[in-house]
Amino acid sequence: MTDVFDHPWLGGLFADVELASLWSPEAQLAGMRAFEVAWSRALGRAGMADPAQAEAAAQAIAAMAFDMADLRAGTGTDGVVVPHLVAQMKAAAGAAKGAVHKGATSQDVIDTALAMAMRDSLAVIDARLVELTGALEALDARFGKEPLMGRTRMQAATEITVHDRIAPWLLPLADHRARLAELRPRVAKVQIGGASGDRFALGDKADGIVAEVAAALDLAPAPRAWHAMRDGVAEFASFLSLVTGTLGKMGQDVALMAQQGISEIALSGGGGSSAMPHKQNPVLAELLVTLARFNAVQVSAMHQALVHEQERSGAAWALEWMVLPQMAQATGRALIAAQVLAGQVRRMGMPE
Amino acid sequence: MTDVFDHPWLGGLFADVELASLWSPEAQLAGMRAFEVAWSRALGRAGMADPAQAEAAAQAIAAMAFDMADLRAGTGTDGVVVPHLVAQMKAAAGAAKGAVHKGATSQDVIDTALAMAMRDSLAVIDARLVELTGALEALDARFGKEPLMGRTRMQAATEITVHDRIAPWLLPLADHRARLAELRPRVAKVQIGGASGDRFALGDKADGIVAEVAAALDLAPAPRAWHAMRDGVAEFASFLSLVTGTLGKMGQDVALMAQQGISEIALSGGGGSSAMPHKQNPVLAELLVTLARFNAVQVSAMHQALVHEQERSGAAWALEWMVLPQMAQATGRALIAAQVLAGQVRRMGMPE
Amino acid sequence: MTDVFDHPWLGGLFADVELASLWSPEAQLAGMRAFEVAWSRALGRAGMADPAQAEAAAQAIAAMAFDMADLRAGTGTDGVVVPHLVAQMKAAAGAAKGAVHKGATSQDVIDTALAMAMRDSLAVIDARLVELTGALEALDARFGKEPLMGRTRMQAATEITVHDRIAPWLLPLADHRARLAELRPRVAKVQIGGASGDRFALGDKADGIVAEVAAALDLAPAPRAWHAMRDGVAEFASFLSLVTGTLGKMGQDVALMAQQGISEIALSGGGGSSAMPHKQNPVLAELLVTLARFNAVQVSAMHQALVHEQERSGAAWALEWMVLPQMAQATGRALIAAQVLAGQVRRMGMPE
Amino acid sequence: MTDVFDHPWLGGLFADVELASLWSPEAQLAGMRAFEVAWSRALGRAGMADPAQAEAAAQAIAAMAFDMADLRAGTGTDGVVVPHLVAQMKAAAGAAKGAVHKGATSQDVIDTALAMAMRDSLAVIDARLVELTGALEALDARFGKEPLMGRTRMQAATEITVHDRIAPWLLPLADHRARLAELRPRVAKVQIGGASGDRFALGDKADGIVAEVAAALDLAPAPRAWHAMRDGVAEFASFLSLVTGTLGKMGQDVALMAQQGISEIALSGGGGSSAMPHKQNPVLAELLVTLARFNAVQVSAMHQALVHEQERSGAAWALEWMVLPQMAQATGRALIAAQVLAGQVRRMGMPE
Repeated sequence: MTDVFDHPWLGGLFADVELASLWSPEAQLAGMRAFEVAWSRALGRAGMADPAQAEAAAQAIAAMAFDMADLRAGTGTDGVVVPHLVAQMKAAAGAAKGAVHKGATSQDVIDTALAMAMRDSLAVIDARLVELTGALEALDARFGKEPLMGRTRMQAATEITVHDRIAPWLLPLADHRARLAELRPRVAKVQIGGASGDRFALGDKADGIVAEVAAALDLAPAPRAWHAMRDGVAEFASFLSLVTGTLGKMGQDVALMAQQGISEIALSGGGGSSAMPHKQNPVLAELLVTLARFNAVQVSAMHQALVHEQERSGAAWALEWMVLPQMAQATGRALIAAQVLAGQVRRMGMPE
Repeated sequence: MTDVFDHPWLGGLFADVELASLWSPEAQLAGMRAFEVAWSRALGRAGMADPAQAEAAAQAIAAMAFDMADLRAGTGTDGVVVPHLVAQMKAAAGAAKGAVHKGATSQDVIDTALAMAMRDSLAVIDARLVELTGALEALDARFGKEPLMGRTRMQAATEITVHDRIAPWLLPLADHRARLAELRPRVAKVQIGGASGDRFALGDKADGIVAEVAAALDLAPAPRAWHAMRDGVAEFASFLSLVTGTLGKMGQDVALMAQQGISEIALSGGGGSSAMPHKQNPVLAELLVTLARFNAVQVSAMHQALVHEQERSGAAWALEWMVLPQMAQATGRALIAAQVLAGQVRRMGMPE
Repeated sequence: MTDVFDHPWLGGLFADVELASLWSPEAQLAGMRAFEVAWSRALGRAGMADPAQAEAAAQAIAAMAFDMADLRAGTGTDGVVVPHLVAQMKAAAGAAKGAVHKGATSQDVIDTALAMAMRDSLAVIDARLVELTGALEALDARFGKEPLMGRTRMQAATEITVHDRIAPWLLPLADHRARLAELRPRVAKVQIGGASGDRFALGDKADGIVAEVAAALDLAPAPRAWHAMRDGVAEFASFLSLVTGTLGKMGQDVALMAQQGISEIALSGGGGSSAMPHKQNPVLAELLVTLARFNAVQVSAMHQALVHEQERSGAAWALEWMVLPQMAQATGRALIAAQVLAGQVRRMGMPE
Repeated sequence: MTDVFDHPWLGGLFADVELASLWSPEAQLAGMRAFEVAWSRALGRAGMADPAQAEAAAQAIAAMAFDMADLRAGTGTDGVVVPHLVAQMKAAAGAAKGAVHKGATSQDVIDTALAMAMRDSLAVIDARLVELTGALEALDARFGKEPLMGRTRMQAATEITVHDRIAPWLLPLADHRARLAELRPRVAKVQIGGASGDRFALGDKADGIVAEVAAALDLAPAPRAWHAMRDGVAEFASFLSLVTGTLGKMGQDVALMAQQGISEIALSGGGGSSAMPHKQNPVLAELLVTLARFNAVQVSAMHQALVHEQERSGAAWALEWMVLPQMAQATGRALIAAQVLAGQVRRMGMPE
């Protein structure tokens, strides 16, 4: 129960393997490692480190194993993992340690890894939006012409068609894809600032290093560090919640349609009950509502974290860590669940 | 205290006259009136009403006075103002009453007025973003080269310049303008759906009527009603909170800089105290933090309202009414306050 | 639309006259005036002011009219109304001005008025909880034995009775009354601290003055200022949201029961539609859901405001002003709406 | 990053071993097992199952190992773990399977385990509140008389003492203990309702079975199922957030006091930086702010979950699962962090 996305049995309901992998500790560590590898090489190319040492450092970092207990202890003391992470990297680099992390800071490492996780999540979400669009179009093709009672304010209104009920599940998906394309460049960019975020230690090599690291990591260069400008991150979170909101509306509709006495939909694969084996609970429909309301709450945390004091806020930054990975997983799971739910529909329309 | 934006004395701190006017009951009524005027004329042009009657109805609606007590009573009974509003309009139209509201529904009227309020708010916000950009650039020009202690995690880090402190207040404004331009077409569009949102009563005249009404109201036509697709509205709210978040960060920074012992900024026009007349409280800086945290909370309500059941949810829709006008005013006020605050700066940089 | 509780027509749906009056600017001003009257007299009795002057000051404050434009201007500058309020009071007191506000501070005045508003709100809420308990008991007496289909996870489960459906609307009310009684002493107490909250200026007269003021205002004395301890206020807000949550559950149930095809309830007085005159929308049931979700969002703001820095936070304090009066009104309105809704029930049970 | 409370390195900052153990899958499974063991025995004593079979079933359940993969698969299908859990228990009980879960339902099992987790969490929190009270009293004893600049609205006000700064960290703890004692009986009670929550299947044995199960599990009997009355759970969550709010205020104050230029506190054990080894970041103080803002957001979800439709809401219930265990851990961690932070103080008062 402590983390529904990674839980022995609740994971069966909530887990999204693909999104979980993008936000996992392993992925974060890989992202931070990739940053430091690219960083060392960029230092070499920029002449801020001996090129051979830089390559040696990069290779050492790429190949090393981490002492996880030390990372944990260090995070407890420092509030971030990077000081101990870098110390381990320097030890691994040995004589080349001068080409490790030089001119970078904790936030560069962690946030660049975050940018990669956001970028990769957007790619997965975009693909799933396409798939879900197809699934709902197929549903519309199958049942769209069936008559249905329109219901406004929970009351029967005028007769519509199933097409009209499906439209608000389907049409926003295209807008979500447009939003995704618009916001992607605002988050898929390196974080490079150094100690106080001004790239001072990089001197006139800054632009070159930023470009090198960005190219190596398939991120855009950022003209400046965004240590304390979190609007891109909060926009990403808002986008996630817009997506789950649309799917939550679909889930709520399906659950309402599935009520005995309403019977506007028939589903296969509903959930059972320990007390009433005959029941067919609309589990995935309810799940969509849950995930929508969850993200609608979490988005508030991400907006609170915009009040990020001075050059770096430990408090606001850590709040993002607590919330964003879960929002991403909730969104991924909702997209999968909606797709599966669409596939479970056996009938839509006026009750027979 | 019941509404800080419209309060005998708290209004002195919170009120934004321009934004308040866009969301005022008067503006809402004007928006609904404009919709019905355009609607009657469109009915006439489309041949769904006698053209002369349609024009007579339009003119009657444009000129009439409303019985506000009746509107209030009607809203209490119906949950929306439109049934009584339309009844009054029909009475005013007399023999032309058949050309009033025919084929439209409550949500068309209220949401189209909402779209106009959002559109006009975006115009004001955009203009203010431009002005604030100028004010912060001016601040940067005056003090940007001054040295300043960089502070990360609330601790002195390395020396930076005032330019570096100002950058995270200034740079996101351009991104906010880009977001605004991107989302505008997703909200500045008519709401037309009729009873259950399917435009059924308009038959093959639907596209024409939509185009006419949209043109008359300077909104885009919408290919379909968005009664139950609230992602545009929630995106608008998210945008507002992104803006206030950036300004809240600025406010927090200024308040921290103004502390005795830190003295990185000197402000004119600070607030007084009833117990300590010598104090110069950074009132506007604090206000920016308050407004940021307020919007960061309210945005959650707008995302909850995405779970909008069936063809129209009375419950989710009314939640928007409770929250969105206040978010817009908070954003407008924050932009003004930030501008004024920038103008209050007399000195920035290391303490003298 | 800018404040649904005080709006020409939305007020017909949302307004609660009694709660609005407790949180109105007039009530706030009356509360602040009452504080200052009691304060002047307490200064006289404690020997911190000449008794005759103290009484003269008290009488002048009690009788004076306020210059509202000046209060508004002052609030804009100072962030709080009290400096200008006190200046006006001193002017009114004339020669007795030395017996005005001496040793008090803004927060004492505003928060003591807040304490009175919370205390009085609790009294109204408690009375309404009693009335609603009676209304629901009466409903249970009328229809409780009727059979009803139990519904779990939106699906028919086993047959229950109407009594079982009503129970979760009714039974929590007793717990809410218990909570109210428990929290009342934690909020119904004077706020007295002076400049930095330590009562320094009151010296050894502090306890006496606190006792006098508390007695005069029918509040408990507080052993210490709670300027920066807002847990009582946040607890009050949490309580409000617990109440609206219970009523929101009732509203959701009623709206679900009233669906065509379910027909487990028949209501009189439902709302009409501009497009479909035959409809009977369950307006009050939906309103209960709206108010529950509204308070469930706002409660977050009140908990954010617990992070109240140092001896007084302008930012966190003002956030309370934005939110708490609306929460109180939402709660009051929900209690009335639930009572009216209970009275609208004409039938409950299995569909006929 | 997917769960900061259980993360290879972030756990070093966020994990609370004791609270985590109370909300872990193991603890949940143990709680559910304990319920079913007690249930089987109670069935036997009530004559609803053969006593020997009941005891055999109880012993089989107590001793069995679970097939976790099956539980996961079942949860994915059913939305809850209990149907598969009970199927495994029946298989383990063999011939005694008739004495397993008879008359109970999923929610009884899961919520009774939840009640135990809440009860046990309250015990830990209460003990920690006592310890923290001692730690802060000790801090007050050491430094309370030192002079300090009072700061209101982020500005120097009048001189106070360290005692005055500590008071708002310390004094609310007693109120929190009072709240805890008051709410405990509202959550530490069994959940027993059966299929639709009316205990129908238990007939006239209901009271006896409830009493037996309650006694066996050291919970109070509940006069009725609280399946759809979640006010106790939301109150528990509100309480958690009140506690973290007080500690967040302490953290914010300490972080502000530790600023260079303010220097009102000296701490040992601050965190290091990868870029600036000399820094002493107030990591635990920031953590307290983070945890306070986290819970202030999450509490909104728990209040949203009060809108729990009909006899059981799958959607609202699952929202609790996503949020409450994290709130409990955040609270536990904050209490530990505050205690450690208090112990790190080497000096408080005016800068030397």
